[in-house]
Amino acid sequence: MTKILVIYASDYGNTEKMARAAAEGVEAVDGTTVTVKQAEEVTAGDWTTSDGVLLGSPVHMGSMDWRVKKMIDTVCSGLWMQDKMNGKVAGVFTSGGGFGNAGGGTELAMLAMLNNFAELGMLIVPLPKMTGDYKHGGLHWGPYGRSADSNMENVGVSEEALAVCRRHGTHLTRAAAAMQNRDIFAP
Amino acid sequence: MTKILVIYASDYGNTEKMARAAAEGVEAVDGTTVTVKQAEEVTAGDWTTSDGVLLGSPVHMGSMDWRVKKMIDTVCSGLWMQDKMNGKVAGVFTSGGGFGNAGGGTELAMLAMLNNFAELGMLIVPLPKMTGDYKHGGLHWGPYGRSADSNMENVGVSEEALAVCRRHGTHLTRAAAAMQNRDIFAP
Amino acid sequence: MTKILVIYASDYGNTEKMARAAAEGVEAVDGTTVTVKQAEEVTAGDWTTSDGVLLGSPVHMGSMDWRVKKMIDTVCSGLWMQDKMNGKVAGVFTSGGGFGNAGGGTELAMLAMLNNFAELGMLIVPLPKMTGDYKHGGLHWGPYGRSADSNMENVGVSEEALAVCRRHGTHLTRAAAAMQNRDIFAP
Amino acid sequence: MTKILVIYASDYGNTEKMARAAAEGVEAVDGTTVTVKQAEEVTAGDWTTSDGVLLGSPVHMGSMDWRVKKMIDTVCSGLWMQDKMNGKVAGVFTSGGGFGNAGGGTELAMLAMLNNFAELGMLIVPLPKMTGDYKHGGLHWGPYGRSADSNMENVGVSEEALAVCRRHGTHLTRAAAAMQNRDIFAP
Repeated sequence: MTKILVIYASDYGNTEKMARAAAEGVEAVDGTTVTVKQAEEVTAGDWTTSDGVLLGSPVHMGSMDWRVKKMIDTVCSGLWMQDKMNGKVAGVFTSGGGFGNAGGGTELAMLAMLNNFAELGMLIVPLPKMTGDYKHGGLHWGPYGRSADSNMENVGVSEEALAVCRRHGTHLTRAAAAMQNRDIFAP
Repeated sequence: MTKILVIYASDYGNTEKMARAAAEGVEAVDGTTVTVKQAEEVTAGDWTTSDGVLLGSPVHMGSMDWRVKKMIDTVCSGLWMQDKMNGKVAGVFTSGGGFGNAGGGTELAMLAMLNNFAELGMLIVPLPKMTGDYKHGGLHWGPYGRSADSNMENVGVSEEALAVCRRHGTHLTRAAAAMQNRDIFAP
Repeated sequence: MTKILVIYASDYGNTEKMARAAAEGVEAVDGTTVTVKQAEEVTAGDWTTSDGVLLGSPVHMGSMDWRVKKMIDTVCSGLWMQDKMNGKVAGVFTSGGGFGNAGGGTELAMLAMLNNFAELGMLIVPLPKMTGDYKHGGLHWGPYGRSADSNMENVGVSEEALAVCRRHGTHLTRAAAAMQNRDIFAP
Repeated sequence: MTKILVIYASDYGNTEKMARAAAEGVEAVDGTTVTVKQAEEVTAGDWTTSDGVLLGSPVHMGSMDWRVKKMIDTVCSGLWMQDKMNGKVAGVFTSGGGFGNAGGGTELAMLAMLNNFAELGMLIVPLPKMTGDYKHGGLHWGPYGRSADSNMENVGVSEEALAVCRRHGTHLTRAAAAMQNRDIFAP
């Protein structure tokens, strides 16, 4: 059995949709269970009982939503102190308007989220360019759901981006299964 | 008259000490006023009435404190929407234990804070290596106050690091004065 | 008189076009001279006789072209050792296919280029969102010229992106003029 | 059999020492072979016949050595085009003077190197804080060998940092073994 935790914050429902799609991708793998929670509801136990974690956030001013950061400061700092997550796997996804047509700050937002995972000793699962509809929905660090088109009309996250999220969920779950019971950081 | 706003969050008083030192550096320049505020108390008016902003945060899991991020999401997003800060100047500083002797995640934490300033259209003032006690107190993006020594004993931020903060405050204030009434982003 | 140096590397001519457009933006400011050079031709003297530097690169695998990096290692390292560029101004621009519709790695590429400028003690000029055709041509750190459309057809850098480059050149030149003879890092 | 490729560039021998230590850590795992090569000698075949790659570089002006970047542009770009490395594992290490006592730009240098690996679809192996002498030799993204002490005397990379490199090599090899024959990115 592989347990995956999908965490998100959402303002207008776009990141939540991506989280739900990622969760579908998790469930598409046999022998898995998935928990989907908002950042503000997540407990340390949710983390420690999971084999892999997917974390999604809207991009605000080039970094993650403050509610996601609050969870990191108040829940993950303690897990780091106690070396609780070493050797598990992690991935990220974000949503945003993409103003400027150059990512709109998502890369650094994703990297700040990944900084947390690296400090926790978790292996990072990237998003290869051959992934389905990648050309409309992602960065090498994870899926990016543009909520606005190139004329900045709010159109919501596209089906292509949601399909990429599903695949990312599946990829991460397989990686979690591969790493289970492999204590790669043992002394 | 040049007005500088120094914003910080602090857990154990280290970042606050750095903020106070930076403010002394601001006041060392003739014709300046300085306001020092915690991130949770800052208003949009504090930002718009300032010519330059210095932002300091503890480093938690490789990124800024959630209280700093909350201010960015709730106050700065609106300033960005309205193009209120373009052409002003900005700088950052952080504190942390420096576990690993390689910055402990401060670089990405500083860059996430600078992402906010760049989106606001503010010029970034870096920290040159020739700055006083730089060798014990900084990164090219700003002062870093190590609260622990290389054996991870909590020793508090050093006098050298505080001296670097003073200089950073002075540098930023001079830059703010140079940019005043210069509308470099005018169409 | 304000002297601006525009440096670029280019594979298929896209980044070069952006460099030429930026240079036009420099020249649009009275009392300026501009030098445009390929990264491989630039000398230390080109840097030290300039008041501001604009650096452009194609994005390859999420970071700058190796020819740009070679210039940084062989020319800029020496300028850093000798504190030669402190207090001058700098900006960046990039081009790339934008595969994935999320910036294609340009943000970290720009930040690596800016790391060089920050180490040199140069003030960073960002790209505000109110800049002309920003919505089709940039990131807060600088112009990004997409050489491919969202279906990944190679269409070359758009007129909108070139217009943003012109504006970035003008902005940077004005900032260089504002900082001239202002020794903000003096002890 | 697990094959690991260790790649490095080196100026004064520090990064090379780290590469040799990492290779020892690889060989400490049963059933492995390791190849150690300078960046300028590496071929596409070296990459495609390996199950995991460790990449080390000196930090110059906050980013990787230009010789490492040249290999990425000329060798890795082609591997990316052809989706040749998806699902393998990767890690990084760096050396530098650490001027400023805050990492000296290593974090962004490591992230630029990791950008290449993420684009190649490779899983990232971080460096957990519980790793041996971590407190003197690393960042969560990988080992960092300080070639200078806090007074900026050139002392060479410490034994503690080399021990951390050995562990990083062992960790990466175990991760490569766990991921072998697991096609996590299959459609």
